[in-house]
Amino acid sequence: MNNFSIGIDIGGTNTDIGLVDINGRVIGRHRISTQTFTNKESYVAAMCEGIRTLMQAHEISHIASIGIGAPNSNFFEGCIEAGTTNLPIKERIPLKEMMEKVFNVNVVVDNDANAAAYGEMIYGGGRGMRHLITITLGTGVGSGIIVDGRLVHGHTGTAGELGHCIVMPHGRPCGCGRRGCIETYASAQGICQNHIEAAEEARRPLSVAEREALTCQQVGEAARHGDPIACRAYEITAQWLGIALANAANFSAPEAIFLMGGPTRAGEALMTPLRKTFEENLLFLYQNKISVRLSELNGNDAAILGAAALGHISL
Amino acid sequence: MNNFSIGIDIGGTNTDIGLVDINGRVIGRHRISTQTFTNKESYVAAMCEGIRTLMQAHEISHIASIGIGAPNSNFFEGCIEAGTTNLPIKERIPLKEMMEKVFNVNVVVDNDANAAAYGEMIYGGGRGMRHLITITLGTGVGSGIIVDGRLVHGHTGTAGELGHCIVMPHGRPCGCGRRGCIETYASAQGICQNHIEAAEEARRPLSVAEREALTCQQVGEAARHGDPIACRAYEITAQWLGIALANAANFSAPEAIFLMGGPTRAGEALMTPLRKTFEENLLFLYQNKISVRLSELNGNDAAILGAAALGHISL
Repeated sequence: MNNFSIGIDIGGTNTDIGLVDINGRVIGRHRISTQTFTNKESYVAAMCEGIRTLMQAHEISHIASIGIGAPNSNFFEGCIEAGTTNLPIKERIPLKEMMEKVFNVNVVVDNDANAAAYGEMIYGGGRGMRHLITITLGTGVGSGIIVDGRLVHGHTGTAGELGHCIVMPHGRPCGCGRRGCIETYASAQGICQNHIEAAEEARRPLSVAEREALTCQQVGEAARHGDPIACRAYEITAQWLGIALANAANFSAPEAIFLMGGPTRAGEALMTPLRKTFEENLLFLYQNKISVRLSELNGNDAAILGAAALGHISL
Repeated sequence: MNNFSIGIDIGGTNTDIGLVDINGRVIGRHRISTQTFTNKESYVAAMCEGIRTLMQAHEISHIASIGIGAPNSNFFEGCIEAGTTNLPIKERIPLKEMMEKVFNVNVVVDNDANAAAYGEMIYGGGRGMRHLITITLGTGVGSGIIVDGRLVHGHTGTAGELGHCIVMPHGRPCGCGRRGCIETYASAQGICQNHIEAAEEARRPLSVAEREALTCQQVGEAARHGDPIACRAYEITAQWLGIALANAANFSAPEAIFLMGGPTRAGEALMTPLRKTFEENLLFLYQNKISVRLSELNGNDAAILGAAALGHISL
């Protein structure tokens, strides 16, 4: 058994390569600029070179696996699909095929949200669990679902889009073109909107300039410091998210639901009302049986650990 | 490979035992009265005797497996839990343990909704599928979820309660004690309520006596014959169910969702508006990729076939 694996987090700006030990510590990092590369050959060669650099620096001769978290990825085919919006390379990138030739180890490619879920199960608070869901709050609301220890990809390969469950028919307009998705209430922008509504409730409406300048980070910081309007904004967030998570529980009755992403830095300003509304909206069968928790993966390492965890999946 | 299996459908009134061939035909049936038995030993002995009677009548010396669909069952433990409401036997009934001793074959116990899903995959329209969901409309709204060819039981063993997903916060009161569950809009009683609302919309409100006498079967028959109010009642049903099924699709992106149960006898009066609202509420990723279909299991045989299919699960 080899004790080291590689996790690669592909983003539009940077591609971060991490060397991860068996205890889930990121012991080395290498960063390349995603935007520098315009064809798949030079990009994959740079990633392979980065892996070799890390192995040499840590005097490691073999790695167990390579996991890659990437946008617009196809788990079944181990590739990034052609035409991915925020990558400069527009052709299909068959990462699995290309990198397995070089390193002769298992290479697994999946999207960030699924990587996060698998990372939580292998290295985080979900260790030992067989059923869990992770929810990533950020620009959107992403999710990864694990049933019986395996990620749910579904027939289409794109399962696990809980952020687009409709919690309010004819509700807020969503970027997906529909209305009332939980993403419109619990994403960073959704939380800002909740703050605007909370300010109106409190008869202290924000000016146009204040609305435009508002960021979710500000709301989170204000909530952490006990600002009543920001706290109320997180209560509204929790009211909607509690319904969405309770609905998700009906599906797979997980042992735990983990939350991660920038807006969760508000901590108990989110988690205390969320646990309350979650239990209130939960079917009696599941009450007091499913915990709602913050991710136990360190934010800085989470993406690399998630990716590295994917490499543990044998296809 | 043995070609015959046993499916047992345990209901509060009757216990139906069926002998099923490899093509999913019920070739023999035996019925015992559930209410006759007040202890587990005599009840299980009667079921075993029923199985032997069927085997002898069809000159079959061996069976491959026994599957049992039962209320309040525990799949992991292969039992009916103690205190089951509509059974006269109030003690725990360890069916798997007791019957495996007698027949020395795999015995699997699960609830009716899960049996229906597995039956659809093994013997019905889901043959060859790895991801599917079945929805049973009736007194309640039940569901069975299959991911990667396996039933989802979850951490608690009681996963797959899509009937209790909330589609309308603060909506109609549900028997579960909460509000706005899809069950309140798409169960037999929910459809009657939709009919009452449709009659009001049409300015032909039902009298108190008419409301009290109304049955879902009547609404279904009227809809099949083109009655505009009954058709509108099914459209309302479809509007809510379309949201619930589209939300379910976000979870497991199944190849198909199958509907069964009495209210589905309305046929296209339900299915045509349902397919429309389902697609309208579906995330773009899944549009035109998931079919919504009527169960292909014959209604009279469905419960026995579902139970028999369970026996194919190796634990």
